[in-house]
Amino acid sequence: MQVYNAPLRDMRFVLHELHDSAAHMQAIDRTDVTQDLIDSILEEAAKFAQDILLPINASGDEEGCRYENGVVRTPKGFKDAYTRFCENGWSALASPAEFGGQELPEVLGKMVEEMQCSANLSFGLYPGLTHGAVLALLGHATEELKARYLPKMIEGTWSGTMNLTEAHCGTDLGLLRTKAVPQPDGSYKITGNKIFISAGEHDLTENIIHLVLARLPDAPKGIKGISLFLVPKFIPTDDGRPGQRNGVTCAGIEHKMGLKASATCQLVFEEATGWLVGEPNRGMHSMFTMMNAERLSVGIQGLGVTETAYQSAVAYAKDRLQGRSLAGTKYPDKAADPIIVHPDVRRTLMTVRAYVEGCRALSGWVAKALDLETKATDPALRQESEDFVALMTPVVKAMFTDLSFELSSMALQVYGGHGYIRDHGMEQLVRDARITMIYEGANGIQALDLVGRKLPAHMGRLMRGFFHPVQQFIEDNASDPNVLPLANAFGALQQATAHLAQAGMKDPEEAGAAATDYLRLLGLVALGYMWARTAKIAAEKLPAANGEAGFYKAKLTTAQFFNDRLLPQAGALWSAIKAGKASMMALEEAAF
Amino acid sequence: MQVYNAPLRDMRFVLHELHDSAAHMQAIDRTDVTQDLIDSILEEAAKFAQDILLPINASGDEEGCRYENGVVRTPKGFKDAYTRFCENGWSALASPAEFGGQELPEVLGKMVEEMQCSANLSFGLYPGLTHGAVLALLGHATEELKARYLPKMIEGTWSGTMNLTEAHCGTDLGLLRTKAVPQPDGSYKITGNKIFISAGEHDLTENIIHLVLARLPDAPKGIKGISLFLVPKFIPTDDGRPGQRNGVTCAGIEHKMGLKASATCQLVFEEATGWLVGEPNRGMHSMFTMMNAERLSVGIQGLGVTETAYQSAVAYAKDRLQGRSLAGTKYPDKAADPIIVHPDVRRTLMTVRAYVEGCRALSGWVAKALDLETKATDPALRQESEDFVALMTPVVKAMFTDLSFELSSMALQVYGGHGYIRDHGMEQLVRDARITMIYEGANGIQALDLVGRKLPAHMGRLMRGFFHPVQQFIEDNASDPNVLPLANAFGALQQATAHLAQAGMKDPEEAGAAATDYLRLLGLVALGYMWARTAKIAAEKLPAANGEAGFYKAKLTTAQFFNDRLLPQAGALWSAIKAGKASMMALEEAAF
Repeated sequence: MQVYNAPLRDMRFVLHELHDSAAHMQAIDRTDVTQDLIDSILEEAAKFAQDILLPINASGDEEGCRYENGVVRTPKGFKDAYTRFCENGWSALASPAEFGGQELPEVLGKMVEEMQCSANLSFGLYPGLTHGAVLALLGHATEELKARYLPKMIEGTWSGTMNLTEAHCGTDLGLLRTKAVPQPDGSYKITGNKIFISAGEHDLTENIIHLVLARLPDAPKGIKGISLFLVPKFIPTDDGRPGQRNGVTCAGIEHKMGLKASATCQLVFEEATGWLVGEPNRGMHSMFTMMNAERLSVGIQGLGVTETAYQSAVAYAKDRLQGRSLAGTKYPDKAADPIIVHPDVRRTLMTVRAYVEGCRALSGWVAKALDLETKATDPALRQESEDFVALMTPVVKAMFTDLSFELSSMALQVYGGHGYIRDHGMEQLVRDARITMIYEGANGIQALDLVGRKLPAHMGRLMRGFFHPVQQFIEDNASDPNVLPLANAFGALQQATAHLAQAGMKDPEEAGAAATDYLRLLGLVALGYMWARTAKIAAEKLPAANGEAGFYKAKLTTAQFFNDRLLPQAGALWSAIKAGKASMMALEEAAF
Repeated sequence: MQVYNAPLRDMRFVLHELHDSAAHMQAIDRTDVTQDLIDSILEEAAKFAQDILLPINASGDEEGCRYENGVVRTPKGFKDAYTRFCENGWSALASPAEFGGQELPEVLGKMVEEMQCSANLSFGLYPGLTHGAVLALLGHATEELKARYLPKMIEGTWSGTMNLTEAHCGTDLGLLRTKAVPQPDGSYKITGNKIFISAGEHDLTENIIHLVLARLPDAPKGIKGISLFLVPKFIPTDDGRPGQRNGVTCAGIEHKMGLKASATCQLVFEEATGWLVGEPNRGMHSMFTMMNAERLSVGIQGLGVTETAYQSAVAYAKDRLQGRSLAGTKYPDKAADPIIVHPDVRRTLMTVRAYVEGCRALSGWVAKALDLETKATDPALRQESEDFVALMTPVVKAMFTDLSFELSSMALQVYGGHGYIRDHGMEQLVRDARITMIYEGANGIQALDLVGRKLPAHMGRLMRGFFHPVQQFIEDNASDPNVLPLANAFGALQQATAHLAQAGMKDPEEAGAAATDYLRLLGLVALGYMWARTAKIAAEKLPAANGEAGFYKAKLTTAQFFNDRLLPQAGALWSAIKAGKASMMALEEAAF
């Protein structure tokens, strides 16, 4: 009963109108990717998400993955859907042509990813992790490893995983204990236990390629003594078939709050054969290629789930008859008015909508920079884009996922008691959304990454790169009263940034105390900027919009709602940041 | 693995120090209820919650209720716990002595209720609903019905339910269809289908007494044509045993997000024998006695769950070693520092703590008024207290439960991935908490009740009754800089109230558009006032506190945190309210 129709019109708006896809393709020298091509791929992706992935979302949650004697079975329909996914080329969408990929730009890839996550988050994880592993191997593996593994992974016949967490360490990977012992043939024997490994074992692919963090003998203690290894479930034969079974087994799967069709595995490595990826003791560096990609993907997951929650709540609000409009009966022929007439239901739907569309606009901006950081013909633009991706990765990851849980819960509320029972699938969305706040670096860690690494980097260069276009826009539109809320929020962000630069430099705990509120403040301003630009475009196009007038009017109204109701939180966030660490840190541990 | 030790010291603070239990007992002429008596009952209640109810909370969630052929079985241990609950007299705690109750004041009753909800929310619903049904019968039933049913219900041998919702109507009960046909003997035959009936069928008691809303023949349409009936599962014999089986059957139970050990039933009434409670067509009036009591109880449920989430997160944060303090290593002998050293973990714990203790203080104030509205010897105080209960019921219900979901999710986050899997029980708390935002009137309805009924009532008298002591406190403490944040938030609330009185009078949609934000603003100010008074007491007592210095210091720090980090939201809420309904209501339905 979950409702999802890919928001193609909005996606086209974000790609073509807000972020000028034509200019973008020129900047990355890909004018072959025309607007028509993009639109037709979006349409195909929409069909796949709606027709193949959505129908097995609720049933996948109900059935869950099953574990027996080391074997994990995904729910009914997952294997078939995955096979079609690969046959239709979706697994190869954004991967390099050299290894069989279609090498389409990320601006398109991220939209397709969003659709898959909207329709079936559990499913999306399997190819999503493979794509992340592909990126890590592309960046750091030897040519031999690349040639042996990438084509199979890109076509989707083999899948990928990332193995970081152990029972005693998740955030603090410096504590990890898994060992890697070099062998005379240049390979390594990997021994240790990993937990929370998504897609660590399943029945979708003929082989599973684990990327595993482990310690070499005599490696330095802590985070600088960790190396990355490729450990296949089956060691490939020279002609590319899965050969001998490797020493990695699944000891069980977790029983989780949600995401039940995604297998979360405990993996045991017993002298498993592996190969080094990247340099020894530089495993965190190599893994971060995958992690950064995954963090953005997790943000998109959050956005995807929220879109489905929004559409489902809208459908219910139009259908459910209850009470009469406070402004007088709207549907006298019905027993009651549909609940969408009630202001509080409107408030809920508009809140979800304003965030979802704002986040999609922002994700489009970040995806653009993802393309530009590696493919822009202009080297200055490359650097600028790399900065922007680095700055926005924690924001997209943490804000989109915090919002996802908050907003899918708001959408559930529209259903009343019917949202709390399984039948409509709303409670699944809330349960599924909840993990996105945790994995790939809990959101508190994202905030620390933002204030501890990204802000101080290059003397604040990353932040200035964001401030500049926002400030320019505000100045260019100073006469527009609708830009005032953005200017106010931006002022709060500037003050908070100055505060952090000063207080956080002297005392890292001050930075830590401000981190989460600062991340949200930055995110809100970024959304406010997206909405202000959206409103400007909508206002310009409205007079000649004809059949599309409704679309642009809705954009203007939603932008206004964002300014009226959501952007003012910036002031409260700045107040909280300004208060500093004193009352947060004063309580003695024993007093808790 | 959920951690719960009843917060007895804080409860004693709220009862005796903040709300002066001795003066209260005098005001209600119950000086027999001494501080020692209260404390010893709290201690016994704590033991029962910790030793009997907590151990079957996670297992109850795991096992759930089972339905087969009309029979509902509660999870292992529930029947035994319920029997002991009644034997120990907990079911009779706050009920009148005339029917076998212990007639203890609500200030005590609500604390005991909180403990039960902390330890086991699903369990708490069974006696909680019975108590609500007892109140409805006490207020509206004939003496004959009271004599026949109340003693059994108060001793807990028989339980109670409330039957409102039908598949097509929850919020809008005017649409309900269940029929009641008068019989020559003065009874009625009840026919219809009800859904979402908590404790509608189970194996804990020998009889179940349903309070059912239904329509008499020729009753007016809508909400004014509804009457209330008592429909027992077994018709009692004259000597008070369950006799003939009545025509009410359970057709199934719901599969829910949480609260799985509480049976949520579909009930089918087929010419079931019932008796009228209260006057014909005044059923909503009678039912509201039960609903208002239940609404406060649901708020307490939210508070209860949050306390357990808080304590569990604290225990984990002290135990889990991960990373080092930003201020330098705190525990050099350990592999890492416990995560409670990290500012973002502190922020989380302090946020949950500041709300939980604030809500407990506020619930103590409301419970006091609950006693006073019926038992104060001074009639003016009775009226004033009735006003305050009426004003605060929607606030306690909606704010405490919104916070419960939000804060239990924050507490889960402290566990990282370990919070998302079943083992620690954190995800259960989040799932359980989610229903409290919905049942007994979804929180949006609470907000409408506040702005649509409570604010305008008696020309704003209810609100003035709340404004007066807050304003007085602010004036009396004008020189204290710690009172400034409260004064600011109070200013925002006053402006918002004036705005609502003006805009909402002209256009009810304006009131509806402001409702949810206004409720939170009022609630925040109420919490701010509780914290300001708490801080004043703590500052006064600290110099001579000796062994209790830690307690009062913690109160001062937490009050400061509340002022620093949480109360500033008042400004953002007032901005949102001020914006009015325009952007909320402008979108055409088709544009959603």
